Amino acid sequence: MGTTNRKHIVVVGAGFGGVKVAQLLSKEPVDVTVVDRNNFHLFQPLLYQLSTSELDENEITYPIRAFFRNKPNVNFFMAHAEGFRPEEKILVTDHGNLAYDYLVLAAGATTNFFGMESVEKNSFGMKTLQESIAIRNHVLRSFEQASRSGDPEERRRLMTFVCVGGGPTGVECAGALSELLYNVIAHEYHGINLQEARVVLVEATDKVLAMMPESLQQETVRVLRDVRHVDVRLGAQVMDYDGRELKFKDGQVLPTATVIWAAGVKAVSLMKELGTETDRAGRVVVTPTLQIREHPEIFAIGDCANFMQDGRPLATVAPVATQQAVVCVENIKTLLRGGSNLKNFVYKDVGAMATICRGHAVVAMGSMKMRGFFAWCAWMVVHLMRLAGTYTNLTVVYKWFWNFLFGLRLGRVISDTEMRD
Amino acid sequence: MGTTNRKHIVVVGAGFGGVKVAQLLSKEPVDVTVVDRNNFHLFQPLLYQLSTSELDENEITYPIRAFFRNKPNVNFFMAHAEGFRPEEKILVTDHGNLAYDYLVLAAGATTNFFGMESVEKNSFGMKTLQESIAIRNHVLRSFEQASRSGDPEERRRLMTFVCVGGGPTGVECAGALSELLYNVIAHEYHGINLQEARVVLVEATDKVLAMMPESLQQETVRVLRDVRHVDVRLGAQVMDYDGRELKFKDGQVLPTATVIWAAGVKAVSLMKELGTETDRAGRVVVTPTLQIREHPEIFAIGDCANFMQDGRPLATVAPVATQQAVVCVENIKTLLRGGSNLKNFVYKDVGAMATICRGHAVVAMGSMKMRGFFAWCAWMVVHLMRLAGTYTNLTVVYKWFWNFLFGLRLGRVISDTEMRD
Repeated sequence: MGTTNRKHIVVVGAGFGGVKVAQLLSKEPVDVTVVDRNNFHLFQPLLYQLSTSELDENEITYPIRAFFRNKPNVNFFMAHAEGFRPEEKILVTDHGNLAYDYLVLAAGATTNFFGMESVEKNSFGMKTLQESIAIRNHVLRSFEQASRSGDPEERRRLMTFVCVGGGPTGVECAGALSELLYNVIAHEYHGINLQEARVVLVEATDKVLAMMPESLQQETVRVLRDVRHVDVRLGAQVMDYDGRELKFKDGQVLPTATVIWAAGVKAVSLMKELGTETDRAGRVVVTPTLQIREHPEIFAIGDCANFMQDGRPLATVAPVATQQAVVCVENIKTLLRGGSNLKNFVYKDVGAMATICRGHAVVAMGSMKMRGFFAWCAWMVVHLMRLAGTYTNLTVVYKWFWNFLFGLRLGRVISDTEMRD
Repeated sequence: MGTTNRKHIVVVGAGFGGVKVAQLLSKEPVDVTVVDRNNFHLFQPLLYQLSTSELDENEITYPIRAFFRNKPNVNFFMAHAEGFRPEEKILVTDHGNLAYDYLVLAAGATTNFFGMESVEKNSFGMKTLQESIAIRNHVLRSFEQASRSGDPEERRRLMTFVCVGGGPTGVECAGALSELLYNVIAHEYHGINLQEARVVLVEATDKVLAMMPESLQQETVRVLRDVRHVDVRLGAQVMDYDGRELKFKDGQVLPTATVIWAAGVKAVSLMKELGTETDRAGRVVVTPTLQIREHPEIFAIGDCANFMQDGRPLATVAPVATQQAVVCVENIKTLLRGGSNLKNFVYKDVGAMATICRGHAVVAMGSMKMRGFFAWCAWMVVHLMRLAGTYTNLTVVYKWFWNFLFGLRLGRVISDTEMRD
């Protein structure tokens, strides 16, 4: 790194935004270093399918280095970015310092428990591969524990799965857990009593999928309740969870061994280290040109950046990050040429979509609304197109097809069993 | 379990032998309980492909319960079998006791370090899924560490991968590691110096693949050395490994961060708990009818049993276990009918095969010997036919095909990175 006289651009994070930035910069006469604590790009929108045993690690990850196989000017540096020395243009990591000419922060977000320590300690976030594997192992192990238990109360607690948060992640996870329960578990646990099992979706406001038109919100709740037997609880605010009982603000208590928390995100803590303005979710405030005002050689994009548009910060979704990546690279190229006429970013809304379960999805693009089977097909096509590689896409197509036909989920591996002899 | 008046047969272990026993018994008017500490059947012969990022967890495992989806008389009990109370016909597990009428021990084997504590502590066994994932993570992380290191000695140590044991596992693992190195790593680590990297195969005797004819042994060594650039060291006996330097009996020292130990197996420690005769490898000695002499209601098959044939114990390979499963079930059926004329087991040798690398394998069946490309195709067909399910087979075919064409391994996930925010 930095062995040539070319400018060195360091990109923190290999999510949708960071990979796009590095891909665009790879065509320029610059040196690029991608920093990530993981050696893989993670397709976060499908994490819930790993958690529910439908897809495997390989399908929702892609080796970061594989993106840059034929790009000798792009290097990968596996490390955890920990801080900054902006005056010296140095990024501090747990494996040493990296000097940069330009720095792009695309470090992403983590789960926001809003300061509820008991919930943070006892429930599962679902933002990383490691968390998703932990959910899969825990859910499968809970069924095994229930199958060994002679206590109906304990079985009910073990087979009550709660997703908190009515956004796409919570909705998709609840639907997929319900499918796992009724299409797989029901057939393979010969003594199971399905009356003792349930999936609960908890949302603090009075609606799910806030970004969707009202008719699609209602359709989503209807499908979850009627088709997938999910216990949807709107206006239910979580107060506390000790690992055994989930407590709500209105005094209700729900015994459960599994709480998946998908009710909020915040920027990774690295962003605080800049010492510049951040919003309530820890996202660093950027200029219309995506720069940090105090350090114009530092750009921030995606979930870790607060970009105001129409008086509101943009949502933490992949299209924002990839669109910002394009403008970020254009602006860096302008600066490299010695120019100063930087471009302002404007987000073009691409709509929203969420899958509810096999054969059911909701899609809203501009004034167009879709629901049901065709919306579900559209959801699949969009997600397949966005997945990293042809190779990956085909195994995903294959697994989805198989699951559609036979309801079989062979990703049911409890991989963290402690081995003694 | 045991809620009917039917006889209850407990099977310990869901490997090749245990699954076969349960499948055959599922057609009989008996209740069967399969006990395993994992919830999946593991296809051990392909573990090395997980360790080397070619296949994923899903392809080499199969959910135990999925075998018995339509067999209501077969239950699964996820637990670690810990001991016996043979007088009461009770199996003791870490999740409670199971009463049986007949007990089939198909508990398998673990790595044998022959009492070398330093080696056991610092090197990797490769008998479980968990161990294989640990190897994959460690190998990939070693390359990342090497890519960040400015010290050539340290880089050499990090990129020296040693497989100990010239059996099929050691040979296949060394070949696959070499392919990973030269076909993948070489292309994606832009600054890598391949002179600093190597794969070493260590064998204490003067030959590899002891069960093969001499001509195929020599062919194997030739391909490893000439085609795959593996440093094959015959007659090299390991004495000590502190995690940094591998020491040999003849005084040689090899700095390496990775030792994969495939030089021996022993029965799981459960077998000792029977208190009956075991051999040096901890395998319980069985009668010609596969029973424990002192407890004729207990059968033992596969890697955990010592069955003498032609004056030698049978090898610990899958065909022995599956052939024994058939005779074991026949004998149990005879006993259930009140008969006493049990069948003696005789192993029918099905030959041996090992793959060396892409396009090269060796196969010996009776007087038939094969090598090279067609042997490799035969190896693939046999392994695909033996894999658990159609679904799995097809993704494996797909991945092998892709790997054959493009040398791409997308299973390169370091999954144990500790996540902080």
